[in-house]
Amino acid sequence: MIAKTPSPPYYTVIFSSIRTEGDNVYSEMADKMLELASKTDGFLGVESVREELGITVSFWRDLSAIKKWKENVEHKVAMEKGKSEWYKSFKVRVAKVERDYGFDADLNLTV
Amino acid sequence: MIAKTPSPPYYTVIFSSIRTEGDNVYSEMADKMLELASKTDGFLGVESVREELGITVSFWRDLSAIKKWKENVEHKVAMEKGKSEWYKSFKVRVAKVERDYGFDADLNLTV
Repeated sequence: MIAKTPSPPYYTVIFSSIRTEGDNVYSEMADKMLELASKTDGFLGVESVREELGITVSFWRDLSAIKKWKENVEHKVAMEKGKSEWYKSFKVRVAKVERDYGFDADLNLTV
Repeated sequence: MIAKTPSPPYYTVIFSSIRTEGDNVYSEMADKMLELASKTDGFLGVESVREELGITVSFWRDLSAIKKWKENVEHKVAMEKGKSEWYKSFKVRVAKVERDYGFDADLNLTV
């Protein structure tokens, strides 16, 4: 569930969104986009959660990998549908991960 | 719900976590930490969602603001409780937001 990302530096795209009512084939598209993204060169992982607000954090090797994903033709169609049908509002933030650390109770370890 | 952050650059802390069973006064602490964080100089906003996985994304003016929050005494106590009681596992990623844009259907606008 928590993405196993390599040591920094790497990049992240934080996608925060509020959905419209109804599915409108959204779930199907979301699954397909996840599959497509994960096949993109430089994709490192993703974490996604939704209540009313949804946050999807994807991780990428560098800015050129993000650019390549942004220019994927099927992704472009989905992005247009996002604006016309699926989202009331969203915000995209592109950020460079400089530092990370984690904790696992089973290992009793902060890494 | 989507945080109104200023123009980049600014910093973000992405906190991804899996909870233990039961509340163990977690909710009360979470509310208190949110209140404390928001009073810290350099705090710009926060977004938080939980299913099984929880993602909390907080936004900060710079690294020194994040450092100050990390050194807050009450926050330190909460961080210890996090490891001993509240979280099975978590990951913290500190990242510099270089670019952002958004969309609002009511305004029919990508900004």
